[in-house]
Parts: sequence; C-alpha cells; structure tokens
Amino acid sequence: MAAGGHVIDAIQYSNWTRAHFEEWHQGGLTAVGVTIAYHETARETLTRLAEWNARLVEHADLICPVRSPGDLDAARADGRVGVLLGAQNCSPIDDDVGLVQVMADAGLKVMQLTYNNLSPIGAGCAELDDPGISRFGREVIAEMNRVGMVVDLSHSAERTTLEAIELSRRPVAVTHANPRAFTDTPRHKSDKVLRALGETGGMLGFSLYPPHLPEGAATTLERFAEMVADTAEITGVGCLGLGTDTCRGWDGRTLDWMRNGRWRRVPEAERHELAETPWPAPPSWFQSPADTPALAEALRARGFDAGEVDAIMGGNWARFLDAALAPAPDPGCGPTKGPTG
Amino acid sequence: MAAGGHVIDAIQYSNWTRAHFEEWHQGGLTAVGVTIAYHETARETLTRLAEWNARLVEHADLICPVRSPGDLDAARADGRVGVLLGAQNCSPIDDDVGLVQVMADAGLKVMQLTYNNLSPIGAGCAELDDPGISRFGREVIAEMNRVGMVVDLSHSAERTTLEAIELSRRPVAVTHANPRAFTDTPRHKSDKVLRALGETGGMLGFSLYPPHLPEGAATTLERFAEMVADTAEITGVGCLGLGTDTCRGWDGRTLDWMRNGRWRRVPEAERHELAETPWPAPPSWFQSPADTPALAEALRARGFDAGEVDAIMGGNWARFLDAALAPAPDPGCGPTKGPTG
Repeated sequence: MAAGGHVIDAIQYSNWTRAHFEEWHQGGLTAVGVTIAYHETARETLTRLAEWNARLVEHADLICPVRSPGDLDAARADGRVGVLLGAQNCSPIDDDVGLVQVMADAGLKVMQLTYNNLSPIGAGCAELDDPGISRFGREVIAEMNRVGMVVDLSHSAERTTLEAIELSRRPVAVTHANPRAFTDTPRHKSDKVLRALGETGGMLGFSLYPPHLPEGAATTLERFAEMVADTAEITGVGCLGLGTDTCRGWDGRTLDWMRNGRWRRVPEAERHELAETPWPAPPSWFQSPADTPALAEALRARGFDAGEVDAIMGGNWARFLDAALAPAPDPGCGPTKGPTG
Repeated sequence: MAAGGHVIDAIQYSNWTRAHFEEWHQGGLTAVGVTIAYHETARETLTRLAEWNARLVEHADLICPVRSPGDLDAARADGRVGVLLGAQNCSPIDDDVGLVQVMADAGLKVMQLTYNNLSPIGAGCAELDDPGISRFGREVIAEMNRVGMVVDLSHSAERTTLEAIELSRRPVAVTHANPRAFTDTPRHKSDKVLRALGETGGMLGFSLYPPHLPEGAATTLERFAEMVADTAEITGVGCLGLGTDTCRGWDGRTLDWMRNGRWRRVPEAERHELAETPWPAPPSWFQSPADTPALAEALRARGFDAGEVDAIMGGNWARFLDAALAPAPDPGCGPTKGPTG
C-alpha cells in the first residue's frame, strides 16, 4: 500500500528532454503517467517503449520506472519521479487479446479502450454513434483485469464508458477529463459517469489542457478548485486526482497526429496550417509541471483539509495504482469492485 | 542461488500440446528452455510470446514461466516445470539495440546472435565467411549483458563464437551443440571454443538431435556418456549440461522453415519433398523427454559421481541461469567473467 505524500500527475505527453524531468522535480511530483502511443501499432509501440527505456537509463538520477506495486513508494523514497507508461488507444495490441499481456510485460501499464474514434473495442467521444463495448472489448477488459493493466476511459464515449465501468472486474480510470457540468462537450464526463466512478473505486484525473477548461486559458485557479469541489460532491474525494494532459515542446503537427493519425487524409493546406499553429497557451497559474504546488494551495484555499488535499494531489492515484498494477490474485476472477476505501 | 536437484534441458522446440508437458513431468524435468523464434521479426515474436503466455495459463498445473533469478527453484518447489523462452536468431530485435530490453521485459530471456547465416551481429555456422562480431553486435552483447538476456552461440561460426565469448562481460551459453571431436562439422564446437567456455564460466548443452550425434540415431547411450566425459576433460564438469534439441510433432516442413526461412526461394518440388520427409528418428534410448533419467544413469555408469551427475543433469544450468537472468548490478559494467565455481 502506497504511503502518503505522493504528488502524481496521471498524464503528460511532451517532446521529452531532461528539462521536463527537472520541471517535475521543481513541482514536487513523485510520479507521472506518460503517453507513448496515440495511433501506434504493436510494432511502433515497441520503438516507443525502447525510447522510454533509454530515457530511463540516461536520466536515472531523476526518473525511474513504475511497473509494479511498490514502485511508486520506492521512487519517492529514492527522490526520483516514477514514470508510468500508457497508451491513449488500443492500437498497440493490433486486435490481438494476447498482446495485452505482452505489452504489459514490456512496460505498457495503462491503455485507453478508445481514442476519439470507433475502435474494435468501443466508441470514442468524437464518434458518430456509440455501440458500447464489443465482443472483443469484453475479452480485452477481462485480460487487462487479469494482468493488471489499467483500463483508461478518458476519450471514450458515454455508453462505452458506462459499459466498461460495469464490465470491468477492477476499478477503472479516467486519467484526464473534466465534468461536463464545467465543460459541456462529449469529451468530458457526465454526472452519471462520475457517479459510476465513485461507486466502483474508479478515478478521475482533472485535465488542465486549456480547451478542457470552462473558460480556456482564462479559467482562474479558483474556478479549477471549484470544479474539484463540485465534483467531490458527486464522487467523493477518494475518486479524484490530477491528469493535467500537459504537452510541452510541441507545435500543431502533434495535434495533427493526435487528431488525424492515419485514419483520414488531411489536405496539404490544412497540414501547413496545423504546422504553423502553436500549442494552446496554458493558464497563467499552470505554465508547467513546476507550478504543481499552486494546485494544492488552491484546494486548501477552497476549504479542503490537509488530508483531502494530499489525497487529491497524489494519495488517491497512489492507492489506486498500487492495487491496479498487481496481477489479479485469481486469474479467472479479478478482485470485486468496491467503493473507494 | 538455485539449490540442487534440478533436471534442466536447455532447448526444445516441439509442436506443443499438453502431452509434451506431461512427458517433461515423466522425465523428471524441472525446467526446459524452449525456442520461440528462428526467423521471426519483432512483430512476429510478439505473437509467439502471446501464444506461450496463453499456454502458461492453460497448463498452469504443469508449467510456469522462468524469467527471473529464483523462478527455477520456485517452479521445482511447486512441482511444475519452468519454461524459459529463447530465440535461435537475432531477428526478434529488428536491428534495434533498444528492442533487447523490450523483448527481455516481454519474456524473451535467451537469444542466439546468429542462426546459420550471417546476421547483422556476426556469422552463423553455415555461412561462407566469418567476419566476427560486428559494430552492432558489440552494442547488442553489451545490452544483453546489461538487461540479463543470455547470449547463446549454438549456431554461430568459430570466429564469431570466440569473439562473443571474449566481448561478453558475462558468461555465455552454447545451449545445444556437441564437440567437433565427436561430430566434425562447423555446426559443432572446437576444442578452442570449449576451452574458452570452460575458462569464462560459460555453458555447453549436449545435443541429442540425431544428425548432431557421431553415429546419428544409431549412436549408443554409452557413446553419449563418453562424449560428456571427454568434454569434461577439456572444460571441467561445471560447464556442462543438456540441450537436447528435442523437436516433437513436426514433419519436414518445419525443417524447411528452420533452414530456409524467407532468405531463399525453395522450388516447389523441394518444398513438397521436405513436406513428405519425416522428422529424423531419435536414438532408441531417448525417444522423448520422458527418457531423461536414462541420461543420468549412463553418466553414473560412465563413472561420474552423484554430485557430478546432478550438476550435468541440471545443477550447472540452474546456477548459470540464476546468475544470467539477473540484470547487471552496474548497468555500465556487467559482472566480471570468472571460471565456473
């Protein structure tokens, strides 16, 4: 069981250099979830894993891998920031349920069932229609439960999200999304989803990606704290954490890859325009992960007590991940879901 | 450190069914190294890994994975046969040094630097010329040393083999080959290689593949014991083990894949002939792994004492593998090679 004192951001995707890992230390982070794939196939994901393995060796004084229960506490005790690798799509398993374990063994510990589009598992939040979880999807969720790979529903559509929460024998995560009550688009989560997360021991990571915030980059820090407080009324505090979706060092070409991958042709002019587009500017109070302590301060100012602030800043993710990364004790039957302890 | 009482066969490649795992139990085996790739690319190797993961779940009452130090003893204590996955070629890493760790993490713990042909690392035993270990090969050996993947030189040519023994900071394995003094072809190992293995704490697994035996399937069990005894004079007993190269349930189409892969075109008539060819018949005294105890009996009859028989039957492999599967304590510098303890 992870001890207290964790500061965890469930999702970032930057154009990684050592400076980003130094910012993590400046922000007091103890662990960060990083995205390694949006549309990558199994083979391409191997290269992304190899790149991260090399970073973890080169910057071993600053960062270390999080793959198993206990790794979070070990990283923190060591004064290093733990790195948890994840994918925002099911493309890394190439439609093969057997690749869930292979990828988990190789270090991929979190996987979204869908990105924005329909996948062989279910529907993404930008899809035309939402058929819920497919036959293959049921097999994949069971296999993820068995091996200890976190089911992430951040980009999934409503029915797909609700069915996945219901079908998963282990609590699931929404690593980065906000309540629709604050940002009313299909990318965000309805009260029904939030309640289901709270009732099953799931997790919601609040996103600071400007387009996810109610007033974009102009959203105030007080408004962020209000969003957390209002959500806690629905889910309970034990369900909440950070998933800032911080993306540093990119321009619009990366947005192009995220949005368009290889699933649609993008006219040359539009590609050029995307390449010229700077990344959305962050709010003034969260210019980089070095500003993470400001979030805790805002939660305290909003009236959360010290234990609640610790829980939201990382304690909840630490507890969730320590349980989630363990293989299911009985391979045929994962742990029963229960409310957050 | 693995305790005594192990019976280990370093290499088999069968058309796996439950019956083969039952034969392992009948033969008193505690662990078996199995080949999962001859010419498979990285992507294809993922599928082979997934197939083995599924077997390990389906037959969990009989077999369990060997991936880390201690797994051999745990398997034996559990009454299950440990399974160590390996490749007979470097094709699984797709010429990418970063895939060494990715594949090791995914469960591939042994890798030949070459099969019969030239690889980007060095030359195989059937190659026209032998340039020794390449620039890439030096990087791959260092990386295998770092992550704890066993360097296997069974099919490598002479210079490549000797240079790999010299370059590797950790002892290497020849999982399946015999001394050239008994079977004089480039597939087998010269006295020079045998001495180098003995001096560096390496291992030689004796092959029972009929074409590897001096008189083929007609080779007597006494002759096998003589081969072991004569080799021990060169290497010492601590260097020796079994690597039977048992292949069950195949016909000549599998030989076709092994020999020809996709590197040469095989005329239709030759393919047809290969398909019609039965697998080489085994010697009468080793029809299947269920006959493994006969090998120990023959070694005793030849004059090896009880401790030496235990060592050759599995104790040496257990000691070697327990050390080999641990990541190097200092990532920049693997353990110094030393003579077998």
